[in-house]
Amino acid sequence: MKREIENPKGKLGILSVGLNGAVTTTFLAGTLAIRKGDKKPIGSLTQMGTIRIGRRIDNNFPLIKDFVPLANLNDLVFGGWDIRNENVYESAISANVLEKNDLETVKDEMKRIKPMKAVFEKRFVKRLDGDWVKTGSTKYELMESLREDIRNFKKENKLDRVVVIWSASTEIFIKESEVHSSLKLFEEGMKNNHPDISPSMLYAYAALAEGAPFVMGAPNLSVEIPALVELSLKNQVPIAGKDYKTGQTLVKTVIAPMLKARMLGLHGWFSTNILGNRDGEVLDEPDNFKTKEESKLSVIDTILQPELYPDLYNKYYHKVRINYYPPRGDNKEGWDNIDIFGWMGYPMQLKINFLCRDSILAAPIVLDLALFADLALRSGMYGIQEWLSFYFKSPIHSKEKVPEHDLFIQLMKLKNTLRKLMGVNPITHLDSNGVEESVEEYYPD
Amino acid sequence: MKREIENPKGKLGILSVGLNGAVTTTFLAGTLAIRKGDKKPIGSLTQMGTIRIGRRIDNNFPLIKDFVPLANLNDLVFGGWDIRNENVYESAISANVLEKNDLETVKDEMKRIKPMKAVFEKRFVKRLDGDWVKTGSTKYELMESLREDIRNFKKENKLDRVVVIWSASTEIFIKESEVHSSLKLFEEGMKNNHPDISPSMLYAYAALAEGAPFVMGAPNLSVEIPALVELSLKNQVPIAGKDYKTGQTLVKTVIAPMLKARMLGLHGWFSTNILGNRDGEVLDEPDNFKTKEESKLSVIDTILQPELYPDLYNKYYHKVRINYYPPRGDNKEGWDNIDIFGWMGYPMQLKINFLCRDSILAAPIVLDLALFADLALRSGMYGIQEWLSFYFKSPIHSKEKVPEHDLFIQLMKLKNTLRKLMGVNPITHLDSNGVEESVEEYYPD
Amino acid sequence: MKREIENPKGKLGILSVGLNGAVTTTFLAGTLAIRKGDKKPIGSLTQMGTIRIGRRIDNNFPLIKDFVPLANLNDLVFGGWDIRNENVYESAISANVLEKNDLETVKDEMKRIKPMKAVFEKRFVKRLDGDWVKTGSTKYELMESLREDIRNFKKENKLDRVVVIWSASTEIFIKESEVHSSLKLFEEGMKNNHPDISPSMLYAYAALAEGAPFVMGAPNLSVEIPALVELSLKNQVPIAGKDYKTGQTLVKTVIAPMLKARMLGLHGWFSTNILGNRDGEVLDEPDNFKTKEESKLSVIDTILQPELYPDLYNKYYHKVRINYYPPRGDNKEGWDNIDIFGWMGYPMQLKINFLCRDSILAAPIVLDLALFADLALRSGMYGIQEWLSFYFKSPIHSKEKVPEHDLFIQLMKLKNTLRKLMGVNPITHLDSNGVEESVEEYYPD
Amino acid sequence: MKREIENPKGKLGILSVGLNGAVTTTFLAGTLAIRKGDKKPIGSLTQMGTIRIGRRIDNNFPLIKDFVPLANLNDLVFGGWDIRNENVYESAISANVLEKNDLETVKDEMKRIKPMKAVFEKRFVKRLDGDWVKTGSTKYELMESLREDIRNFKKENKLDRVVVIWSASTEIFIKESEVHSSLKLFEEGMKNNHPDISPSMLYAYAALAEGAPFVMGAPNLSVEIPALVELSLKNQVPIAGKDYKTGQTLVKTVIAPMLKARMLGLHGWFSTNILGNRDGEVLDEPDNFKTKEESKLSVIDTILQPELYPDLYNKYYHKVRINYYPPRGDNKEGWDNIDIFGWMGYPMQLKINFLCRDSILAAPIVLDLALFADLALRSGMYGIQEWLSFYFKSPIHSKEKVPEHDLFIQLMKLKNTLRKLMGVNPITHLDSNGVEESVEEYYPD
Repeated sequence: MKREIENPKGKLGILSVGLNGAVTTTFLAGTLAIRKGDKKPIGSLTQMGTIRIGRRIDNNFPLIKDFVPLANLNDLVFGGWDIRNENVYESAISANVLEKNDLETVKDEMKRIKPMKAVFEKRFVKRLDGDWVKTGSTKYELMESLREDIRNFKKENKLDRVVVIWSASTEIFIKESEVHSSLKLFEEGMKNNHPDISPSMLYAYAALAEGAPFVMGAPNLSVEIPALVELSLKNQVPIAGKDYKTGQTLVKTVIAPMLKARMLGLHGWFSTNILGNRDGEVLDEPDNFKTKEESKLSVIDTILQPELYPDLYNKYYHKVRINYYPPRGDNKEGWDNIDIFGWMGYPMQLKINFLCRDSILAAPIVLDLALFADLALRSGMYGIQEWLSFYFKSPIHSKEKVPEHDLFIQLMKLKNTLRKLMGVNPITHLDSNGVEESVEEYYPD
Repeated sequence: MKREIENPKGKLGILSVGLNGAVTTTFLAGTLAIRKGDKKPIGSLTQMGTIRIGRRIDNNFPLIKDFVPLANLNDLVFGGWDIRNENVYESAISANVLEKNDLETVKDEMKRIKPMKAVFEKRFVKRLDGDWVKTGSTKYELMESLREDIRNFKKENKLDRVVVIWSASTEIFIKESEVHSSLKLFEEGMKNNHPDISPSMLYAYAALAEGAPFVMGAPNLSVEIPALVELSLKNQVPIAGKDYKTGQTLVKTVIAPMLKARMLGLHGWFSTNILGNRDGEVLDEPDNFKTKEESKLSVIDTILQPELYPDLYNKYYHKVRINYYPPRGDNKEGWDNIDIFGWMGYPMQLKINFLCRDSILAAPIVLDLALFADLALRSGMYGIQEWLSFYFKSPIHSKEKVPEHDLFIQLMKLKNTLRKLMGVNPITHLDSNGVEESVEEYYPD
Repeated sequence: MKREIENPKGKLGILSVGLNGAVTTTFLAGTLAIRKGDKKPIGSLTQMGTIRIGRRIDNNFPLIKDFVPLANLNDLVFGGWDIRNENVYESAISANVLEKNDLETVKDEMKRIKPMKAVFEKRFVKRLDGDWVKTGSTKYELMESLREDIRNFKKENKLDRVVVIWSASTEIFIKESEVHSSLKLFEEGMKNNHPDISPSMLYAYAALAEGAPFVMGAPNLSVEIPALVELSLKNQVPIAGKDYKTGQTLVKTVIAPMLKARMLGLHGWFSTNILGNRDGEVLDEPDNFKTKEESKLSVIDTILQPELYPDLYNKYYHKVRINYYPPRGDNKEGWDNIDIFGWMGYPMQLKINFLCRDSILAAPIVLDLALFADLALRSGMYGIQEWLSFYFKSPIHSKEKVPEHDLFIQLMKLKNTLRKLMGVNPITHLDSNGVEESVEEYYPD
Repeated sequence: MKREIENPKGKLGILSVGLNGAVTTTFLAGTLAIRKGDKKPIGSLTQMGTIRIGRRIDNNFPLIKDFVPLANLNDLVFGGWDIRNENVYESAISANVLEKNDLETVKDEMKRIKPMKAVFEKRFVKRLDGDWVKTGSTKYELMESLREDIRNFKKENKLDRVVVIWSASTEIFIKESEVHSSLKLFEEGMKNNHPDISPSMLYAYAALAEGAPFVMGAPNLSVEIPALVELSLKNQVPIAGKDYKTGQTLVKTVIAPMLKARMLGLHGWFSTNILGNRDGEVLDEPDNFKTKEESKLSVIDTILQPELYPDLYNKYYHKVRINYYPPRGDNKEGWDNIDIFGWMGYPMQLKINFLCRDSILAAPIVLDLALFADLALRSGMYGIQEWLSFYFKSPIHSKEKVPEHDLFIQLMKLKNTLRKLMGVNPITHLDSNGVEESVEEYYPD
C-alpha cells in the first residue's frame, strides 16, 4: 500500500521571492544557524515534530524527519529574487527582526546570498518602489526571464531539484476573470500584457513550467487560478498556499473550533492588529488590505458552519482591522474580542492579546513547506496539496470542497497523509474502552 | 459490527448530588425551559451537535440525538440530595446566576423539586455547614440510606433507569491509600468509619450498587479509586469523571495543543482566576484548593509531552491561582499569561482573558453527561468511559494510559466512538488528494 | 471678595438637542429616579461630590451642592428637540441602555416628555434620517423657529431660566471659515443659507440670543466659532464644550499625566474602540469620524508638551480607531496599547481595556453641566467657561491659550473656581512640613 | 520669604543599602552613563522635569535642576553595603536587568564599586543567605560599625555630605511595639538585642546619628517609628519613605483618583502581579509578603475616602496578589481588574495590564530621592518629608494626618514646595476666566 517515494539524493534549491524581506532573511539566518548546530529548529514540525505509529500504548513516536524521507538541511541551497540589490545580511540587519549578535555566526554565508532581479509592477504594491527589476516588453518575456533564472540557478549550483516559494508582499485585491480560466487564455494574456496577470502569477507559471513546486505565502490571487492548477496537473507538480497562518489567525483557528466543539454561540468577533514592519506599511493601502481581509475573514465562517448551526452562528458580526503602527516593528500584536453566548443565551466574553513576532512565526513555516513540497514531488503527488492546509490562512482547495481551517483537523490530515504515504494505518482516536472487539483495521485511541 | 443498544423506553431519573447548588439549579431551569420550547439548548452537544457520516462531499451531518438513541428530554425526572432544605427555585434565586425573569416560566416545576437529606462531613468541606443531613453510626449505614433513596426515587417516579451525577463541592485533597485499593477493604472501611472514605465515595458506591452510572463533576478523589472501578466492572455500570472542564482549563486544552502543533516552546504559564460564588468560597480553603490545583496543573504537562519534546517543554514554569472575589458572583474570570518562544529562541507572549460564567458553562455538560452515561449503560459499555474525557479537566483513565487532555482529540474520540457504536466507519481526515487509491476502508478527508 | 450670586429661585428648564437619543433618555430616566429617591446620583459631581475648605486637618468637606447655590433637582423641567417623534420612554426602551425594570417607576413621567421638531440637514449626519423636522426657506428662519420654541417652552412651563445642551450626533468635519469669523457675517450667512453653517450652530445662536447658556456635548465645530463667542460676550451668557469626556479619553487624560509626572517617554499610543449604538453607526461614516478623531487626537500632545520634553515626547506615534460593532450596543469597549520607555531607554508596555457604557458615563455629565452653566449665569460669568474643561474631550478655550486636558488639573481648576466664587481661599497642596512660617495666605496641604 | 539654602559645594556621597541588588546596580549604571553623556536621564524628575513659574501665558518653564540648587551628578560618589562581596558590575550582569552591551561604557567604573559588609539577620529575610556580613555581640555594636563605615567613607572620599538610601529587600512584617516608642527605649533595645529591632532600623539610626538623611525604599517598618522620628528631629535630619512607587501601585494612584473625580463607585479591585527577580523570591515568603501587602492595600482606601463617600466606596472588595514567576526575571507584570459602577448603579469594568520593569522604574527614583533629600538637608528641612510622598507606595506621615496617595496631589505638593522654597508663589490652577479681579496673590490657571 506504501507509495514509491524517490529518495532525496543530491541538492535541493530553495528560491524565495522576496529574498531580502524580513521573513526570508529570518528563515535563512535561522536555517544556517541550525545547520551549524548553533540553534534548535524551534517552530518547525519537519525538524522537531514526532508522529505516533500504532496504538497509544505502543509508545512509538519517531521524529517526522526520520519517518518520511525529507531532504537534509545540509543539502539545501538558497537563492531568490528581490527588488532591492543587497546581500541578505544587510537586509536582515535593516529588517531588525533578529539582534545583530544572533547573526554573527552566519554573517559570512549570508553576505554571499544575493538576489536576482525581480519582476515588479508598482500597480500591485503601491507603497513600494524597486530598483532591481527586470525589464521586458511583455509579461511573457518577463516570465521567460524567470524560467531562465531557475535553470541557471540549478545549473550553477548543480541542484537535483528546486522549490519556489513566495514570501514577498501582498498584492492588491483582484478577482478571478476570464484570462485566469484556462492555460491557453493565460498564455495569450501574458503575451498581451493583460492587466489581470500579476507578478506573482508569472513566478508561479515559471516555477511550474520548470517542474518546480510553487508555494504562495501571501494572500495573493495567484497559483490557485484554473490556468495554473491546469499547468500543475499537466506538468505533475505540487502547489500549495496561501497566506502563512502565523499570529492572530492561528489563534482563531483553534478558538473557533473550541466554540463549536462546545456548542457555544457567537454574537461577534472583533480582531485588531498593530504591526510596524513593511508588511504593515503595504497593508496600510486599502487595495492591498482588501486582499488580506478576504483571507482573514473567511476563516471563521468556514469553521463554524452557520448552515449547520443557525441558532449559534447565523448572525454574528465579524470585523478584522490591521493597523500600521511603526513603534513595534516586526513585533506585531493582535487583540481579539469575542462575544459568545451559552446556556439560556447568557453572554460571555473572551479576549486574546497575542504579542507575537511576524517573521519568527513565519520562518519555520517556510522551511517546512519547502521540504514537504519537495517530498510531495518525489512521492508523485501533484496539483493542490490540501494536506498542507495546516500552514495557511486561506488554504487553496478544489472548487467542490470548502477549505479546512480547523488547525487540529489540518494537523490530523497532515499526519494521516504522512502515515498513508509510508503505508501505515491512520489514527482515529477511537476509544478502545468497551468497544474493543471490532477495531482491528485502524489504530484506535 | 454495530452494537446492540437497548432503546430508551420509559423514564430516566437524574439524581444530582448538590441539587440546590448553582450548577444543578441552572441545569434544571434550562432543561425545563428547553423542554417547554422557551429556550434553545445552547452549549449541549447531545442536543445541538451534528456528526459527519461518510465523506465530506457526501454532505451528511445528522444531529447526534438523531443518530444515536438518547433518552428524550421529556422522559427525564429530576431529584437529588443537598445539605440545605429548600426547593430548587428558591436556591436558583439565591444562586443569582439566572435573572428572575428567566425563571418565571419554570417557577412552578422548580418549586416542586426538593432535596433528600445529604451525607455530609464537615472535615471535607470546611467552609460549608449543612443542616439537612443524614445521621448514621457508620459510613456503611449512610451509604445504605443513599441506596434506599435511589430505590425509593425510582419506585415513586416509576423510572426505568437512573443516573447519579455529582455537581457538589470540591472536597479536601486526599491521597489514594490502602482502604481504596479493593472492594473488600473499602466495604470494611465503610463499616469501620475509615477517615479516608469521603462522602463522594459513598454516593458513588451507592449508585453503582444500584446499577446506576455515576459521574463525578468535581475534582474529588472518588469513583476512580480501584475499589470503585472494581465495583463498576463487577456490576457492569459506566463511570465517568472528573471535574467539569468549563472556563480557563477549557481554553488551556486548545491553546496548549496549538503550541505543540506548531512546535512553539514554553517558558511559563501563569493562570489566575477570580470568582465569587460558593465554589470560590470553598476553594479559598487551602486543603480544598489543593484538590483543584492538582486537577488544573496536570493538564498542560500531559498535552505537551515534555518527554518527547525536551527542547520545547522541559523547563516551563506553571502556576495556577484561584482567588475568591465576591463582586463577581458566579461570573468568574480567568487571566492567563503564556510566555512562549519560537524560531531562534525568540520570546513571545499570549494573554487570554475569559469573562465566563461558571454555571452557564457547566449546566449543558451535566445534561450531556447524564444522557451519554445512560446511552453507555444501554449499550453494554461499563467501567471508565474515556470517550467522555471531552467534558473533564482530569479525565479518569486506566492506570496504564495517560489521560487525553487535548480537546480536539477528545472530541474526535467521542464522535468516532459514537460512529463505531452505530456501525459506521470512523473519520480520519486523511487527505484524499493524491493518495486516493487505497483508502476504501475508512472515510478520508 | 465673594461674588454676588443670584439665588436659584423658580424653575430651570433643560432643553436637550437629541432629546430622544441614548444619552438624554438615560439622563432623564436617572434624574427622575433620583428625584423620586429611587436611585443615588452616581457619577454626578454636583450631587455627590464634596469640596475641602481650609486646611486638611480642619476636616471640613461640605457637599458641593451645599457649598454653592445650585438649582435643586426638584426645580428642573425637561424638554428638547429630536428628529423622531416619540415620547422619551419609548426611545429609552429602544436605546436599550437601561433595563425595562429600571424604567418602571419613571415610566409615566417619561411618557409625557416629547420632542419639538428639530432642525436637521442630512449632509451633516449622513447615516441618519429624520421625519420630525422643521422646514424653512433659510437657516435664519429655522433659527428663529428655535428661538420661538425656547420662548414658548419657558412661558408654558413658567420657567425662570433655561439651559440648552447638545447631546445629539457628531456632525461631519468642517473647518472654521470666513462666515464664522464675526457675528455680522454669520447672521448674513444664515440668511443666505451658507453651507458652512451647521444645525448645531443654529441651536447655539438661538440659545444665546435668548439668554440661555449653551453646552456642546459632541465634537462639532459650533459654539466656539468667533461669531458665537462674540454673541455670548455681547449677551453675557456662558458657553461650554465640547465632546463629553467619557470612556477612553477619560482614561487617557489620567494616564498621560502619569507618564509625564514620572518623566517616562512615549514611543506610541494605539487606541481602538468598539461600540454598537447609534453613535457608533454615525461615526462609521468617515466624515463624521474625522470630527471625532480630531477631538480625540489632540489630547495627548497637549498634555505631554513635546516642545518642553523633546527627548521624551517628540516622536511618538498616535493612532485612534473607532469601530462600529453592533453586538455591544451601548456598551462600548476601549483597548489602549501604550508603548513607553524609561531609564536607559528601556521599553515597557501598558495596556488598558475599558468595558464601559457610553450613556451611563455621559448622563451625569449632562446633569452637572446644566447645573453649573446655570450657576455661571447667575454668578455673572459669561463667555467660555474653561473651569468646566473637566467634562470635555476638547475643552473650548481662548485662542491665546492651549486647552487644559489633564483631568486632575481640570478638577483643581473647577474646585478652586468654586472656592473663589464663594470667597474662600484656593487649595495649593503645599506641604506644611518644614516650611510652615510663610503660608498664611493660602491653604497649604 | 525665600529660604536660605546652602549651595551644594563639594561632593555628595550616596550610600545604598543593597548595593549589589538589581535596583542599585541599575541606578548606578544609568547614572554613570548619564554623567558620561551616553544616556538621557529618562524617568528622573530632578534631571528632566520642568516647573512652571508664574501664569500659564508667561510661558516660563525652567528645568527643576536649574530652579533649585541640586547637587550636580558629577559631584556624586557611590558606595554602600551588601551581603554578597562582588563588584557592582558582576552583580549587574547577574541581575540581568540591563543588557551587557549597555554596561560596556561604564564597566570599569562599576568594577571599582564594592560593598562594605552588611548587617544581616536571616529571620527578617528568610529566603536569602549572606556571607559578607558584620558580626557583633549586640545590635548596638553592629550599628556602631555602620556609623564607622559612614565616617570612613566620608573621609576617604573627601565628601561634604552623605545620604543613606535603602534599596534592599523587604523584611518580614512586624508591628510597632514599645521598644520603638522612644529614642531612649530604642537605644536600650539595641544594647539588649531586642528582637523587634530590624537591620533596617540600625541603618536608619546610624545614618541619622551621622547627620545623613535616610530614605527607606522598601515597605519595612523602619525610619517612621517614633524613636527614629525623634532622632531625626533632634539631629535636624530629613527622612523619607517608604516603598518606591513603581509599577502597579503607580497606576492605582492615578486610576483611583480618576474614579473619585468622576464619582464612579467601586465594587471590587483585584490586583495580581507576576515577577521573577529576587524581590519576587523574597515576597514568595508569606511573612515578607505581608509587609508588602499592607503597603499596597492601604493606598486605595486612603484615596477614595469611604467615610466621605459611603454610597460609592463603603463596601468594595480589594485583593492584592504577588506571584513569584521566574520566566520574567526583572520584567514584572501587573494585571488589575476593577469593577466599577456608574449612573443608575450600572456596572462597568476596567482592566489594566502593565508590562513593566521593576528596576528600570525604581532607578531614577533613587537618584531623585538622594538629590532631594540632600536639598532638604541644606534647606534646613528635617523630620518627615511629606512633599516626597510622590515617590512612595506608603508615604510616611505624622500621626495626625492621613498620608497623601493621589499621584497628582503629590506632584503638586512637591512642586509647590519647591516654589515656596525659592520664594515663588504656588500654582492654584484657578481659572482666570470670569473671576479675574481678585486673584493677585496667587498664580491662577
